Amino acid sequence: MLQTKVAPIGREVRGLVRAGKLRHPTSGLAPGYVQANLAILPRDLAFEFLLFCQRNPKPCPLIEVLEPGQFEPKMSAPGADIRTDLPKYRIYRNGELSAEVDDLLEFWREDLVSFLIGCSFTFEKALLDNGIELPHWGTDKNVSMFKTNIVCTPAGRFKGPMVVSMRWIPRNKVVRAVQATSRFPAVHGAPIHIGDPAEIGVKDVNKPDYGQAWPAGSGEVPVFWACGVTPQAVAAASKPSLMITHAPGHMFVTDLKDEDVAAL
Amino acid sequence: MLQTKVAPIGREVRGLVRAGKLRHPTSGLAPGYVQANLAILPRDLAFEFLLFCQRNPKPCPLIEVLEPGQFEPKMSAPGADIRTDLPKYRIYRNGELSAEVDDLLEFWREDLVSFLIGCSFTFEKALLDNGIELPHWGTDKNVSMFKTNIVCTPAGRFKGPMVVSMRWIPRNKVVRAVQATSRFPAVHGAPIHIGDPAEIGVKDVNKPDYGQAWPAGSGEVPVFWACGVTPQAVAAASKPSLMITHAPGHMFVTDLKDEDVAAL
Repeated sequence: MLQTKVAPIGREVRGLVRAGKLRHPTSGLAPGYVQANLAILPRDLAFEFLLFCQRNPKPCPLIEVLEPGQFEPKMSAPGADIRTDLPKYRIYRNGELSAEVDDLLEFWREDLVSFLIGCSFTFEKALLDNGIELPHWGTDKNVSMFKTNIVCTPAGRFKGPMVVSMRWIPRNKVVRAVQATSRFPAVHGAPIHIGDPAEIGVKDVNKPDYGQAWPAGSGEVPVFWACGVTPQAVAAASKPSLMITHAPGHMFVTDLKDEDVAAL
Repeated sequence: MLQTKVAPIGREVRGLVRAGKLRHPTSGLAPGYVQANLAILPRDLAFEFLLFCQRNPKPCPLIEVLEPGQFEPKMSAPGADIRTDLPKYRIYRNGELSAEVDDLLEFWREDLVSFLIGCSFTFEKALLDNGIELPHWGTDKNVSMFKTNIVCTPAGRFKGPMVVSMRWIPRNKVVRAVQATSRFPAVHGAPIHIGDPAEIGVKDVNKPDYGQAWPAGSGEVPVFWACGVTPQAVAAASKPSLMITHAPGHMFVTDLKDEDVAAL
Protein backbone atom coordinates (compact mmCIF):
# COMPACT_ATOMS: atom_id res chain seq x y z
CA MET A 1 0.00 0.00 0.00
CA LEU A 2 1.49 3.28 -1.11
CA GLN A 3 1.48 5.91 1.61
CA THR A 4 1.72 9.47 0.37
CA LYS A 5 3.44 11.84 2.78
CA VAL A 6 2.38 15.40 2.06
CA ALA A 7 5.11 17.84 3.12
CA PRO A 8 3.78 20.57 5.43
CA ILE A 9 3.69 24.05 3.96
CA GLY A 10 5.25 27.10 5.58
CA ARG A 11 2.09 28.21 7.35
CA GLU A 12 1.55 24.77 8.87
CA VAL A 13 5.07 24.62 10.26
CA ARG A 14 4.59 28.06 11.84
CA GLY A 15 1.26 26.93 13.31
CA LEU A 16 2.95 23.97 15.01
CA VAL A 17 5.68 26.25 16.36
CA ARG A 18 3.19 28.83 17.65
CA ALA A 19 1.23 26.07 19.39
CA GLY A 20 4.42 24.98 21.17
CA LYS A 21 4.49 21.63 19.36
CA LEU A 22 7.75 22.16 17.43
CA ARG A 23 10.95 23.31 19.15
CA HIS A 24 13.60 21.59 17.01
CA PRO A 25 15.70 22.73 14.02
CA THR A 26 13.77 23.43 10.81
CA SER A 27 16.15 21.92 8.24
CA GLY A 28 14.17 19.75 5.82
CA LEU A 29 10.78 21.04 7.00
CA ALA A 30 8.37 22.52 4.41
CA PRO A 31 10.66 21.67 1.49
CA GLY A 32 10.38 24.20 -1.31
CA TYR A 33 9.57 27.06 1.10
CA VAL A 34 12.11 29.79 1.83
CA GLN A 35 13.45 29.84 5.39
CA ALA A 36 15.08 32.89 6.94
CA ASN A 37 17.61 33.97 9.55
CA LEU A 38 16.26 36.52 12.02
CA ALA A 39 18.07 39.55 13.44
CA ILE A 40 16.25 42.11 15.58
CA LEU A 41 17.87 45.40 16.57
CA PRO A 42 16.71 48.64 18.20
CA ARG A 43 15.65 51.45 15.85
CA ASP A 44 18.75 53.57 16.55
CA LEU A 45 20.95 50.84 15.00
CA ALA A 46 18.56 49.84 12.22
CA PHE A 47 19.75 52.27 9.53
CA GLU A 48 23.37 51.21 9.99
CA PHE A 49 22.51 47.51 9.97
CA LEU A 50 20.28 47.91 6.90
CA LEU A 51 23.17 49.73 5.21
CA PHE A 52 25.51 46.89 6.25
CA CYS A 53 23.18 44.36 4.61
CA GLN A 54 22.89 46.52 1.46
CA ARG A 55 26.68 46.65 1.19
CA ASN A 56 27.18 42.95 1.89
CA PRO A 57 24.42 41.22 -0.07
CA LYS A 58 26.24 37.87 -0.32
CA PRO A 59 26.34 37.13 3.45
CA CYS A 60 23.30 39.33 4.31
CA PRO A 61 20.68 39.02 1.54
CA LEU A 62 17.48 40.66 2.78
CA ILE A 63 14.21 38.78 2.41
CA GLU A 64 12.17 41.36 4.34
CA VAL A 65 12.70 44.19 6.82
CA LEU A 66 9.81 45.16 9.11
CA GLU A 67 8.91 48.67 10.25
CA PRO A 68 9.87 49.55 13.84
CA GLY A 69 7.58 47.75 16.30
CA GLN A 70 5.92 45.57 13.67
CA PHE A 71 6.01 41.80 14.07
CA GLU A 72 3.99 40.60 11.06
CA PRO A 73 6.10 39.99 7.94
CA LYS A 74 3.39 41.10 5.52
CA MET A 75 5.41 40.44 2.38
CA SER A 76 6.93 37.03 3.09
CA ALA A 77 4.44 35.50 5.56
CA PRO A 78 1.15 37.40 6.02
CA GLY A 79 -0.50 36.51 9.33
CA ALA A 80 2.74 35.30 10.88
CA ASP A 81 4.13 36.68 14.14
CA ILE A 82 7.89 37.08 14.34
CA ARG A 83 7.66 36.91 18.17
CA THR A 84 6.14 33.43 18.38
CA ASP A 85 6.66 31.60 15.09
CA LEU A 86 10.31 30.54 15.38
CA PRO A 87 11.10 27.41 17.42
CA LYS A 88 13.79 29.10 19.52
CA TYR A 89 15.37 32.53 19.99
CA ARG A 90 18.59 33.93 21.42
CA ILE A 91 18.86 37.25 23.20
CA TYR A 92 22.22 39.01 23.19
CA ARG A 93 23.00 41.99 25.40
CA ASN A 94 26.17 43.98 24.70
CA GLY A 95 27.34 41.17 22.42
CA GLU A 96 26.93 38.44 25.08
CA LEU A 97 24.34 35.66 24.94
CA SER A 98 21.98 36.41 27.84
CA ALA A 99 19.09 34.00 27.25
CA GLU A 100 17.60 31.35 24.96
CA VAL A 101 13.80 31.55 24.89
CA ASP A 102 10.77 29.97 23.18
CA ASP A 103 9.04 33.26 22.32
CA LEU A 104 9.62 37.02 22.45
CA LEU A 105 6.27 38.17 23.85
CA GLU A 106 7.71 39.56 27.07
CA PHE A 107 10.81 40.99 25.36
CA TRP A 108 9.03 42.91 22.62
CA ARG A 109 9.48 46.69 22.35
CA GLU A 110 7.98 49.29 20.04
CA ASP A 111 11.42 50.34 18.78
CA LEU A 112 12.54 46.89 17.57
CA VAL A 113 13.26 46.39 13.87
CA SER A 114 13.21 42.82 12.49
CA PHE A 115 15.44 41.72 9.62
CA LEU A 116 14.75 38.45 7.77
CA ILE A 117 17.90 37.30 5.99
CA GLY A 118 18.10 34.55 3.38
CA CYS A 119 19.10 31.07 4.53
CA SER A 120 21.07 28.47 2.59
CA PHE A 121 18.35 25.80 2.80
CA THR A 122 16.87 27.10 -0.47
CA PHE A 123 20.07 26.81 -2.45
CA GLU A 124 20.85 23.47 -0.82
CA LYS A 125 17.59 22.17 -2.27
CA ALA A 126 18.78 23.42 -5.68
CA LEU A 127 22.03 21.46 -5.19
CA LEU A 128 20.09 18.32 -4.22
CA ASP A 129 17.80 18.74 -7.24
CA ASN A 130 20.96 18.77 -9.35
CA GLY A 131 22.17 15.45 -7.97
CA ILE A 132 24.65 16.85 -5.44
CA GLU A 133 24.45 14.97 -2.14
CA LEU A 134 24.55 16.89 1.16
CA PRO A 135 25.02 14.48 4.09
CA HIS A 136 23.74 16.97 6.71
CA TRP A 137 20.47 17.68 4.83
CA GLY A 138 17.34 17.00 6.86
CA THR A 139 19.33 15.98 9.93
CA ASP A 140 19.83 18.09 13.04
CA LYS A 141 23.53 18.33 12.18
CA ASN A 142 24.87 21.46 10.57
CA VAL A 143 27.19 22.25 7.70
CA SER A 144 30.82 23.36 8.45
CA MET A 145 31.21 27.13 8.85
CA PHE A 146 34.38 29.23 9.07
CA LYS A 147 35.45 32.78 9.77
CA THR A 148 37.49 34.00 6.80
CA ASN A 149 40.07 36.72 6.12
CA ILE A 150 37.50 38.39 3.83
CA VAL A 151 36.51 41.68 5.43
CA CYS A 152 32.88 42.75 5.06
CA THR A 153 32.31 46.31 3.85
CA PRO A 154 31.66 48.21 7.08
CA ALA A 155 28.62 50.42 7.71
CA GLY A 156 28.39 52.71 10.71
CA ARG A 157 29.15 50.65 13.82
CA PHE A 158 28.90 47.31 12.01
CA LYS A 159 32.04 45.60 10.71
CA GLY A 160 33.72 42.21 10.81
CA PRO A 161 34.84 39.15 8.85
CA MET A 162 32.69 37.22 6.41
CA VAL A 163 31.60 33.82 7.69
CA VAL A 164 31.29 31.09 5.05
CA SER A 165 29.73 27.66 4.87
CA MET A 166 31.67 24.85 3.15
CA ARG A 167 30.31 21.89 1.24
CA TRP A 168 32.27 19.09 -0.44
CA ILE A 169 31.30 18.99 -4.11
CA PRO A 170 32.35 16.25 -6.59
CA ARG A 171 34.82 17.75 -9.06
CA ASN A 172 32.54 17.06 -12.04
CA LYS A 173 29.63 18.86 -10.30
CA VAL A 174 31.42 22.10 -9.36
CA VAL A 175 30.28 24.04 -12.44
CA ARG A 176 26.71 22.83 -11.93
CA ALA A 177 26.89 23.90 -8.26
CA VAL A 178 27.86 27.43 -9.36
CA GLN A 179 25.03 27.54 -11.90
CA ALA A 180 22.38 26.12 -9.59
CA THR A 181 23.13 28.52 -6.70
CA SER A 182 23.63 31.58 -8.94
CA ARG A 183 19.87 31.56 -9.54
CA PHE A 184 19.28 32.38 -5.85
CA PRO A 185 21.08 35.61 -4.85
CA ALA A 186 18.41 36.19 -2.17
CA VAL A 187 19.76 33.16 -0.28
CA HIS A 188 23.54 33.81 -0.64
CA GLY A 189 23.72 32.94 -4.34
CA ALA A 190 26.88 31.75 -6.08
CA PRO A 191 29.93 30.52 -4.12
CA ILE A 192 32.52 33.09 -3.04
CA HIS A 193 35.44 30.63 -3.34
CA ILE A 194 36.27 27.26 -4.87
CA GLY A 195 39.25 25.17 -3.78
CA ASP A 196 42.22 25.95 -1.50
CA PRO A 197 40.77 26.95 1.90
CA ALA A 198 43.99 28.82 2.86
CA GLU A 199 43.31 31.46 0.22
CA ILE A 200 40.40 32.80 2.25
CA GLY A 201 42.13 32.31 5.59
CA VAL A 202 40.67 28.91 6.51
CA LYS A 203 43.55 26.98 8.10
CA ASP A 204 41.94 23.58 8.64
CA VAL A 205 38.71 22.46 6.95
CA ASN A 206 38.41 19.77 9.59
CA LYS A 207 38.12 22.34 12.39
CA PRO A 208 35.12 24.55 11.64
CA ASP A 209 34.38 27.65 13.76
CA TYR A 210 30.65 26.80 13.74
CA GLY A 211 28.70 23.64 12.86
CA GLN A 212 30.61 20.43 12.53
CA ALA A 213 33.33 18.83 10.41
CA TRP A 214 32.46 16.59 7.47
CA PRO A 215 35.01 14.28 5.82
CA ALA A 216 35.92 14.77 2.16
CA GLY A 217 34.84 12.10 -0.28
CA SER A 218 37.12 10.93 -3.07
CA GLY A 219 37.52 13.54 -5.82
CA GLU A 220 35.60 16.19 -3.90
CA VAL A 221 36.49 19.90 -3.84
CA PRO A 222 35.72 22.30 -0.97
CA VAL A 223 33.31 25.00 -2.16
CA PHE A 224 32.54 28.03 0.03
CA TRP A 225 29.41 30.16 0.18
CA ALA A 226 28.77 33.38 2.13
CA CYS A 227 26.85 32.43 5.28
CA GLY A 228 23.92 33.87 7.24
CA VAL A 229 25.94 33.53 10.46
CA THR A 230 27.90 36.60 9.29
CA PRO A 231 25.40 39.19 10.56
CA GLN A 232 25.33 37.54 14.00
CA ALA A 233 29.13 37.43 14.18
CA VAL A 234 29.37 41.02 12.99
CA ALA A 235 26.61 42.31 15.24
CA ALA A 236 28.07 40.44 18.21
CA ALA A 237 31.47 42.05 17.51
CA SER A 238 29.88 45.51 17.51
CA LYS A 239 28.21 44.76 20.86
CA PRO A 240 24.80 46.39 20.41
CA SER A 241 22.91 46.98 23.65
CA LEU A 242 20.31 44.46 22.45
CA MET A 243 20.17 42.03 19.58
CA ILE A 244 17.73 39.13 19.22
CA THR A 245 18.26 36.29 16.73
CA HIS A 246 16.91 32.83 15.97
CA ALA A 247 18.74 29.98 17.72
CA PRO A 248 21.08 28.27 15.22
CA GLY A 249 19.12 26.04 12.83
CA HIS A 250 15.77 27.18 14.27
CA MET A 251 14.73 29.34 11.33
CA PHE A 252 11.65 31.33 10.32
CA VAL A 253 9.68 29.43 7.66
CA THR A 254 8.07 31.87 5.19
CA ASP A 255 5.22 31.47 2.69
CA LEU A 256 7.58 32.22 -0.20
CA LYS A 257 8.41 29.36 -2.52
CA ASP A 258 12.02 28.91 -3.58
CA GLU A 259 11.10 29.97 -7.12
CA ASP A 260 9.64 33.24 -5.75
CA VAL A 261 13.15 34.37 -4.84
CA ALA A 262 14.92 33.00 -7.93
CA ALA A 263 16.67 35.73 -9.91
CA LEU A 264 15.98 34.11 -13.26
CA MET B 1 43.39 57.17 -42.52
CA LEU B 2 41.54 55.35 -39.75
CA GLN B 3 40.81 57.56 -36.78
CA THR B 4 40.19 55.67 -33.57
CA LYS B 5 37.85 57.42 -31.18
CA VAL B 6 38.51 56.19 -27.67
CA ALA B 7 35.38 56.49 -25.53
CA PRO B 8 36.04 58.41 -22.29
CA ILE B 9 35.92 56.34 -19.14
CA GLY B 10 33.83 57.17 -16.10
CA ARG B 11 36.58 59.04 -14.27
CA GLU B 12 37.30 61.24 -17.29
CA VAL B 13 33.65 62.24 -17.66
CA ARG B 14 33.52 63.18 -13.97
CA GLY B 15 36.73 65.20 -14.36
CA LEU B 16 35.17 67.23 -17.16
CA VAL B 17 32.05 67.80 -15.07
CA ARG B 18 34.04 68.84 -12.00
CA ALA B 19 36.05 71.30 -14.10
CA GLY B 20 32.80 72.88 -15.30
CA LYS B 21 33.34 71.75 -18.91
CA LEU B 22 30.33 69.42 -19.16
CA ARG B 23 26.82 70.51 -18.18
CA HIS B 24 24.70 68.48 -20.60
CA PRO B 25 22.91 65.09 -20.28
CA THR B 26 25.16 62.04 -19.91
CA SER B 27 23.33 59.55 -22.17
CA GLY B 28 25.84 57.83 -24.43
CA LEU B 29 28.89 59.11 -22.50
CA ALA B 30 31.44 56.57 -21.19
CA PRO B 31 29.66 53.62 -22.85
CA GLY B 32 30.01 50.44 -20.82
CA TYR B 33 30.16 52.35 -17.51
CA VAL B 34 27.27 52.25 -15.06
CA GLN B 35 25.45 55.57 -14.57
CA ALA B 36 23.30 56.31 -11.54
CA ASN B 37 20.35 58.37 -10.39
CA LEU B 38 21.06 60.45 -7.27
CA ALA B 39 18.73 61.05 -4.31
CA ILE B 40 19.95 62.85 -1.19
CA LEU B 41 17.87 63.00 1.98
CA PRO B 42 18.41 64.11 5.57
CA ARG B 43 19.48 61.40 8.05
CA ASP B 44 16.09 61.33 9.81
CA LEU B 45 14.43 60.09 6.59
CA ALA B 46 17.28 57.84 5.45
CA PHE B 47 16.19 54.61 7.17
CA GLU B 48 12.68 54.86 5.74
CA PHE B 49 13.95 55.65 2.24
CA LEU B 50 16.51 52.82 2.39
CA LEU B 51 13.70 50.52 3.48
CA PHE B 52 11.56 51.80 0.58
CA CYS B 53 14.35 50.94 -1.87
CA GLN B 54 14.82 47.50 -0.29
CA ARG B 55 11.11 46.79 -0.70
CA ASN B 56 10.94 48.12 -4.26
CA PRO B 57 14.11 46.84 -5.93
CA LYS B 58 12.73 47.04 -9.48
CA PRO B 59 12.20 50.84 -9.55
CA CYS B 60 14.83 51.59 -6.85
CA PRO B 61 17.82 49.25 -7.28
CA LEU B 62 20.62 50.50 -5.03
CA ILE B 63 24.11 50.87 -6.48
CA GLU B 64 25.58 52.49 -3.35
CA VAL B 65 24.40 54.30 -0.23
CA LEU B 66 26.83 56.67 1.51
CA GLU B 67 27.16 57.20 5.25
CA PRO B 68 25.64 60.44 6.62
CA GLY B 69 27.77 63.44 5.62
CA GLN B 70 30.00 61.47 3.25
CA PHE B 71 30.27 62.57 -0.38
CA GLU B 72 32.81 60.09 -1.80
CA PRO B 73 31.21 56.92 -3.24
CA LYS B 74 34.09 54.66 -2.22
CA MET B 75 32.59 51.50 -3.68
CA SER B 76 31.37 52.66 -7.08
CA ALA B 77 33.67 55.64 -7.80
CA PRO B 78 36.63 56.09 -5.41
CA GLY B 79 37.92 59.67 -5.47
CA ALA B 80 34.65 61.07 -6.82
CA ASP B 81 32.69 63.83 -5.08
CA ILE B 82 28.92 63.53 -5.18
CA ARG B 83 28.66 67.31 -4.62
CA THR B 84 30.51 68.35 -7.79
CA ASP B 85 30.65 65.44 -10.23
CA LEU B 86 27.15 65.52 -11.70
CA PRO B 87 26.43 68.02 -14.49
CA LYS B 88 23.30 69.45 -12.86
CA TYR B 89 21.31 69.07 -9.63
CA ARG B 90 17.80 69.83 -8.46
CA ILE B 91 16.91 70.92 -4.94
CA TYR B 92 13.41 70.19 -3.68
CA ARG B 93 12.03 71.70 -0.47
CA ASN B 94 8.76 70.29 0.92
CA GLY B 95 8.24 68.49 -2.39
CA GLU B 96 8.59 71.64 -4.53
CA LEU B 97 11.48 72.32 -6.93
CA SER B 98 13.32 75.25 -5.38
CA ALA B 99 16.53 75.47 -7.42
CA GLU B 100 18.59 73.91 -10.22
CA VAL B 101 22.32 74.23 -9.51
CA ASP B 102 25.72 73.19 -10.93
CA ASP B 103 27.15 71.91 -7.66
CA LEU B 104 26.15 71.26 -4.04
CA LEU B 105 29.13 72.77 -2.22
CA GLU B 106 27.12 75.50 -0.49
CA PHE B 107 24.14 73.21 0.17
CA TRP B 108 26.04 70.36 1.82
CA ARG B 109 25.22 69.34 5.39
CA GLU B 110 26.70 66.74 7.73
CA ASP B 111 23.37 64.93 8.05
CA LEU B 112 22.81 64.29 4.33
CA VAL B 113 22.64 60.69 3.08
CA SER B 114 23.28 60.04 -0.63
CA PHE B 115 21.59 57.20 -2.51
CA LEU B 116 22.89 56.10 -5.93
CA ILE B 117 20.15 54.23 -7.80
CA GLY B 118 20.63 52.19 -10.97
CA CYS B 119 19.87 53.87 -14.30
CA SER B 120 18.49 52.25 -17.44
CA PHE B 121 21.45 53.25 -19.64
CA THR B 122 23.20 49.98 -18.75
CA PHE B 123 20.34 47.74 -19.80
CA GLU B 124 19.73 49.88 -22.88
CA LYS B 125 23.27 49.08 -23.97
CA ALA B 126 22.41 45.40 -23.50
CA LEU B 127 19.37 45.88 -25.75
CA LEU B 128 21.50 47.64 -28.40
CA ASP B 129 24.10 44.85 -28.20
CA ASN B 130 21.27 42.44 -28.96
CA GLY B 131 20.27 44.29 -32.12
CA ILE B 132 17.34 46.21 -30.65
CA GLU B 133 17.30 49.83 -31.87
CA LEU B 134 16.55 52.67 -29.45
CA PRO B 135 15.98 55.92 -31.34
CA HIS B 136 16.61 58.15 -28.27
CA TRP B 137 20.00 56.55 -27.47
CA GLY B 138 22.89 58.98 -27.35
CA THR B 139 20.63 61.97 -28.09
CA ASP B 140 19.49 64.55 -25.54
CA LYS B 141 15.94 63.25 -25.97
CA ASN B 142 14.47 60.93 -23.40
CA VAL B 143 12.47 57.73 -23.44
CA SER B 144 8.68 57.84 -22.71
CA MET B 145 7.82 57.47 -19.02
CA PHE B 146 4.43 56.93 -17.36
CA LYS B 147 2.87 56.84 -13.91
CA THR B 148 1.11 53.47 -13.51
CA ASN B 149 -1.62 51.99 -11.34
CA ILE B 150 1.02 49.74 -9.75
CA VAL B 151 1.42 50.79 -6.13
CA CYS B 152 4.93 50.62 -4.67
CA THR B 153 5.25 48.82 -1.33
CA PRO B 154 5.24 51.69 1.18
CA ALA B 155 7.91 52.21 3.85
CA GLY B 156 7.50 54.72 6.65
CA ARG B 157 6.55 58.08 5.10
CA PHE B 158 7.39 56.97 1.54
CA LYS B 159 4.68 55.70 -0.77
CA GLY B 160 3.40 56.24 -4.29
CA PRO B 161 2.90 54.79 -7.77
CA MET B 162 5.55 53.02 -9.80
CA VAL B 163 6.84 55.03 -12.74
CA VAL B 164 7.80 53.00 -15.82
CA SER B 165 9.74 53.66 -19.00
CA MET B 166 8.39 52.30 -22.29
CA ARG B 167 10.30 51.15 -25.34
CA TRP B 168 8.90 49.81 -28.63
CA ILE B 169 10.38 46.37 -29.24
CA PRO B 170 9.98 44.35 -32.47
CA ARG B 171 7.70 41.39 -31.79
CA ASN B 172 10.42 38.87 -32.66
CA LYS B 173 12.85 40.53 -30.23
CA VAL B 174 10.61 40.64 -27.13
CA VAL B 175 11.93 37.40 -25.63
CA ARG B 176 15.51 38.53 -26.24
CA ALA B 177 14.72 41.88 -24.58
CA VAL B 178 13.51 40.03 -21.46
CA GLN B 179 16.62 37.84 -21.40
CA ALA B 180 19.09 40.67 -22.02
CA THR B 181 17.69 42.95 -19.30
CA SER B 182 17.15 40.12 -16.77
CA ARG B 183 20.94 39.95 -16.40
CA PHE B 184 20.93 43.45 -14.86
CA PRO B 185 18.66 43.62 -11.77
CA ALA B 186 20.88 46.42 -10.39
CA VAL B 187 19.62 48.70 -13.18
CA HIS B 188 15.87 47.81 -13.12
CA GLY B 189 16.30 44.34 -14.65
CA ALA B 190 13.55 42.52 -16.53
CA PRO B 191 10.42 44.32 -17.79
CA ILE B 192 7.44 44.60 -15.46
CA HIS B 193 4.88 44.44 -18.29
CA ILE B 194 4.65 43.50 -21.97
CA GLY B 195 1.80 44.65 -24.21
CA ASP B 196 -1.53 46.38 -23.46
CA PRO B 197 -0.66 49.67 -21.69
CA ALA B 198 -4.15 49.89 -20.14
CA GLU B 199 -3.42 46.88 -17.94
CA ILE B 200 -0.99 48.94 -15.88
CA GLY B 201 -3.08 52.12 -16.00
CA VAL B 202 -1.40 53.81 -18.97
CA LYS B 203 -4.22 55.41 -20.96
CA ASP B 204 -2.32 56.75 -23.97
CA VAL B 205 1.22 55.67 -24.89
CA ASN B 206 1.46 58.80 -27.05
CA LYS B 207 1.07 61.08 -24.00
CA PRO B 208 3.88 60.25 -21.56
CA ASP B 209 3.98 61.80 -18.07
CA TYR B 210 7.74 62.36 -18.40
CA GLY B 211 10.15 62.35 -21.36
CA GLN B 212 8.67 62.40 -24.83
CA ALA B 213 6.45 60.33 -27.13
CA TRP B 214 7.96 58.00 -29.71
CA PRO B 215 5.91 56.55 -32.60
CA ALA B 216 5.45 52.78 -32.87
CA GLY B 217 7.16 51.03 -35.76
CA SER B 218 5.41 48.29 -37.71
CA GLY B 219 5.07 45.06 -35.70
CA GLU B 220 6.41 46.64 -32.50
CA VAL B 221 5.13 45.88 -28.99
CA PRO B 222 5.23 48.31 -26.06
CA VAL B 223 7.46 46.91 -23.30
CA PHE B 224 7.58 48.56 -19.85
CA TRP B 225 10.42 48.64 -17.33
CA ALA B 226 10.42 50.01 -13.76
CA CYS B 227 11.99 53.47 -13.88
CA GLY B 228 14.44 55.42 -11.74
CA VAL B 229 12.08 58.40 -11.78
CA THR B 230 9.95 56.47 -9.26
CA PRO B 231 11.95 57.50 -6.15
CA GLN B 232 11.74 61.17 -7.16
CA ALA B 233 7.99 60.94 -7.76
CA VAL B 234 7.51 59.06 -4.49
CA ALA B 235 9.78 61.32 -2.45
CA ALA B 236 8.15 64.41 -3.95
CA ALA B 237 4.73 63.03 -2.96
CA SER B 238 5.91 62.54 0.64
CA LYS B 239 7.18 66.17 0.72
CA PRO B 240 10.42 65.78 2.68
CA SER B 241 11.79 69.05 4.08
CA LEU B 242 14.79 68.65 1.77
CA MET B 243 15.58 66.32 -1.11
CA ILE B 244 18.35 66.79 -3.66
CA THR B 245 18.47 64.85 -6.94
CA HIS B 246 20.31 64.93 -10.26
CA ALA B 247 18.59 66.98 -12.97
CA PRO B 248 16.80 64.61 -15.41
CA GLY B 249 19.31 62.92 -17.72
CA HIS B 250 22.30 64.49 -15.90
CA MET B 251 23.48 61.32 -14.19
CA PHE B 252 26.41 60.29 -12.00
CA VAL B 253 28.91 58.26 -14.06
CA THR B 254 30.56 55.58 -11.90
CA ASP B 255 33.75 53.53 -12.34
CA LEU B 256 31.72 50.30 -12.44
CA LYS B 257 31.55 48.50 -15.76
CA ASP B 258 28.18 47.15 -16.86
CA GLU B 259 29.43 43.59 -16.32
CA ASP B 260 30.33 44.46 -12.70
CA VAL B 261 26.61 44.75 -11.92
CA ALA B 262 25.45 41.79 -14.03
CA ALA B 263 23.68 39.12 -11.96
CA LEU B 264 24.99 36.25 -14.06
